[in-house]
Amino acid sequence: MRAADLIMKKRDGQVLSYGELRFFIEGYVAGEIPDYQAASWLMAVYFKGMSAEETGNLTKLMMHSGKVLDLSSLKGPLVDKHSTGGVGDKTSLILAPVAAACGVQVPMMSGRALGHTGGTLDKLESLKGYNVTFTEPEILRILRETGYIVMGQTEHIVPADRKMYALRDVTATVESIPLITASILSKKLAEGADSLVFDVKCGSGAFMKNEEAALELADSLVNTGKAMGRKIIALITAMDEPLGNMVGNFLEVEEAWECLQGRGPEDLMEVSMALAARMLMAAGVCTNPEKALFLCREKIDNGEASRIFLENLKSQGGDPDWFRENAGSWRAPVRRVLKASAAGYISRIDAFQTGMAGISLGVGRSRAGDPVEPHTGIRFFAKTGDFVEKNEAVCEIFALSNQQADEALGIMERAVKTDPEKPEVIPRILREIT
Amino acid sequence: MRAADLIMKKRDGQVLSYGELRFFIEGYVAGEIPDYQAASWLMAVYFKGMSAEETGNLTKLMMHSGKVLDLSSLKGPLVDKHSTGGVGDKTSLILAPVAAACGVQVPMMSGRALGHTGGTLDKLESLKGYNVTFTEPEILRILRETGYIVMGQTEHIVPADRKMYALRDVTATVESIPLITASILSKKLAEGADSLVFDVKCGSGAFMKNEEAALELADSLVNTGKAMGRKIIALITAMDEPLGNMVGNFLEVEEAWECLQGRGPEDLMEVSMALAARMLMAAGVCTNPEKALFLCREKIDNGEASRIFLENLKSQGGDPDWFRENAGSWRAPVRRVLKASAAGYISRIDAFQTGMAGISLGVGRSRAGDPVEPHTGIRFFAKTGDFVEKNEAVCEIFALSNQQADEALGIMERAVKTDPEKPEVIPRILREIT
Repeated sequence: MRAADLIMKKRDGQVLSYGELRFFIEGYVAGEIPDYQAASWLMAVYFKGMSAEETGNLTKLMMHSGKVLDLSSLKGPLVDKHSTGGVGDKTSLILAPVAAACGVQVPMMSGRALGHTGGTLDKLESLKGYNVTFTEPEILRILRETGYIVMGQTEHIVPADRKMYALRDVTATVESIPLITASILSKKLAEGADSLVFDVKCGSGAFMKNEEAALELADSLVNTGKAMGRKIIALITAMDEPLGNMVGNFLEVEEAWECLQGRGPEDLMEVSMALAARMLMAAGVCTNPEKALFLCREKIDNGEASRIFLENLKSQGGDPDWFRENAGSWRAPVRRVLKASAAGYISRIDAFQTGMAGISLGVGRSRAGDPVEPHTGIRFFAKTGDFVEKNEAVCEIFALSNQQADEALGIMERAVKTDPEKPEVIPRILREIT
Repeated sequence: MRAADLIMKKRDGQVLSYGELRFFIEGYVAGEIPDYQAASWLMAVYFKGMSAEETGNLTKLMMHSGKVLDLSSLKGPLVDKHSTGGVGDKTSLILAPVAAACGVQVPMMSGRALGHTGGTLDKLESLKGYNVTFTEPEILRILRETGYIVMGQTEHIVPADRKMYALRDVTATVESIPLITASILSKKLAEGADSLVFDVKCGSGAFMKNEEAALELADSLVNTGKAMGRKIIALITAMDEPLGNMVGNFLEVEEAWECLQGRGPEDLMEVSMALAARMLMAAGVCTNPEKALFLCREKIDNGEASRIFLENLKSQGGDPDWFRENAGSWRAPVRRVLKASAAGYISRIDAFQTGMAGISLGVGRSRAGDPVEPHTGIRFFAKTGDFVEKNEAVCEIFALSNQQADEALGIMERAVKTDPEKPEVIPRILREIT
């Protein structure tokens, strides 16, 4: 077998067999197939795509290029949820304790903020002492104690993806659905999940700007899962405005805590519960969303979910007392309020621009590795469809300096639009793919 | 400017500006842009192509990546001819002295045999003492003395192509019309030619198997020439059976010599004169093929072309007396004759298989760098359309060993077909592109 022949085969639109892909991927990871051959193969994949079976085989090979967590000693189904990234998206913090309360084990591998999108790890690390890096025995212990864990990508997991992603980044081959699919799935499956729920965001604040692109990725994730014999459910959800009323790190944990106590905003609750319900369905706990939603709601109403949240906080090194003392009051000191310039309905709060305002406040980062601020951010008093009087507060900004605050205020002035007419109501859960 | 952005631009089907291409190609040759970025760009070019202007800019940049021969001190137009490669194709040896006799300067850069196709350099090197490697002053001297030179690619010419071709070879990006075009043109123009004539071969013994593919390459060569302000004429010629009656190294020089004395076979003469006439037209000596063909024919009839051939032979280190003593008699010792198995018309002499028989005799080589034999080969007594009696000789094989001879005979038995019906006559000059 020669690498050049496999590149040619893919270039000509043919399907590579498992053995051929294994030769190529294992050879690449071992350094026997050079970067330049991998690069031209990646570009051929960009143009010619991969079948679901081929994507599944690529996923398997990438997954087994490094360590695979063995969580089989745990009782109960293991389900993780993955979002393609949004603004104000703190659903993970809500659905993990809810699903755990319903008997699902949730080994959640999360990411960090990058560009306009936020990161679950950064949010949780705003809590004093909260840790997201663990050894395998610690992971098992935390899952046993609290039913869920939120962790960063552990070392030695999917080295093939690290190597391949670095190459894709500099060879204009990032935007390929099968490559994105294999990259996401290989990491999720290597971290020990049996089944997966995907939240494919769609809109100005999402990686996928329109429903067609979101559907393409969702289909690929679900079909690749099928080809691998894994249960995968995907929801396509709207990401045109920030989710919930808070954008920040500590601010978002605080809002998740409100949700877990039954006091969360409607949009955030709807998306979080829809995803939690799919986790129950993926786990085989329920067969229909109505029953699943009923169970999830019950765990919030009876306080079970919020109890598990605090338990997890403690298990992962945090301090529940510190959290409860600071919730509702810990804010960066410099404040600005964006006021409505005229009476009318909020017709748009652009999620992408809100994310960019977040970067200027240090909520997010424009380059990987940059530090983030724990207690800066934006709190909304009104969302799309709400009526505001002239000079009524639309949102409040919490910053560390006047310069930061003014910059973020300037961006939010452009992000928020009002209109005398009440805008059309847009659904939040756009599609389900199973 | 970032290389990754230029790869993305090409991937998305956009045209790169001269400045962008310069950044990429100069950066690649200088080692600042790594192989893996070049490889993914090459694959994007494979899928998305290049405009004629873009291909012209790439050609210019490749051409100026190294030394460019300065032949401007020579009087008269400088025209070279390039063939995409065939079997029995010794037209260069005929048309160069003919065009020189008509006042055209011919700085001919030729190649070596590879695979089933022959190489002009290997043919001429079968002549005792004949040299094809010269310094710039020597090139000028030989051109001044005899009006033409046949040489190998000189060192320091188009390093960009050497580097890029090596990469294309292992990344399945050889078969791209704009990349092939820029590779051929940059080398031809760096060797000092002003105008060019292309013989794009088409058929079983050619790189391009059908007329559509040949036309695509011919169009690209001519249009890129136009975009660069260069006069380029292309002929598409048939390569389904070997050209002429001889396939070998010394054998083919011998046949060219017969042609120059007016005793050549019709098919070879037709193609050689058609190409020589286009060289006169590209040089501006004539405006129509009839007048050009008349002039070329005249130089053969009056002995001028054969005189110049012998002069060139001497100028390039050969021995005209040795050549004339050996012409017609110097043959490898082991012989086989292929006899017609039944009376009938020859309906096919497959050029590709004849080339493969040539490899088995050491006329050609399957790997670059392998040695070739000077005096082995095949002589045809009948060609397609000729009637043969049962047991009449179709061709004779000259080999160095019984094993070689038997192998070649076996291949030729499969290559030659006879039919009771007289086959259709197929034209030899299929198209002209200007």
